[in-house]
Amino acid sequence: MSTATRVKATILVRPKEGILDPQGQAVEGALQELGFPVTAVRIGRVVDIELDTADADEARAQLERACEQLLANPLIERYEIAVER
Amino acid sequence: MSTATRVKATILVRPKEGILDPQGQAVEGALQELGFPVTAVRIGRVVDIELDTADADEARAQLERACEQLLANPLIERYEIAVER
Repeated sequence: MSTATRVKATILVRPKEGILDPQGQAVEGALQELGFPVTAVRIGRVVDIELDTADADEARAQLERACEQLLANPLIERYEIAVER
Repeated sequence: MSTATRVKATILVRPKEGILDPQGQAVEGALQELGFPVTAVRIGRVVDIELDTADADEARAQLERACEQLLANPLIERYEIAVER
């Protein structure tokens, strides 16, 4: 008999190395025009999520599936899942 | 006489509490339809950035200004800057 626990997690989704990042390039150019000494900018997403699962391990397994199915595009993006203790 | 150093930093930009996050709401609904037991989703941006400055303190000061001017909308977003040592 399992009871669900509210688990919080943060997922970082970033463009893979070598994949073009037009949003990062645009921001890099804009920062340089403003005078900032930037040499590289890459932009991804941070997803803060709460879910009800048996425990942190189950939450991580669910979030891996959620990343593969919806939160990231595994062809061009990599993701990191951090589950709060 | 100062020499510039390449500094790497990561900035997290998130919607402030109480601010509507339509992207997060859409993803929350989509995950629930897929059967994931999610109860909250908030979506922001992760910005990985490199810049040439005197040191890490100067980098942080520059990045604060970059966030206020371009990387975040301080009215509706909060940001966290982590400079790599």
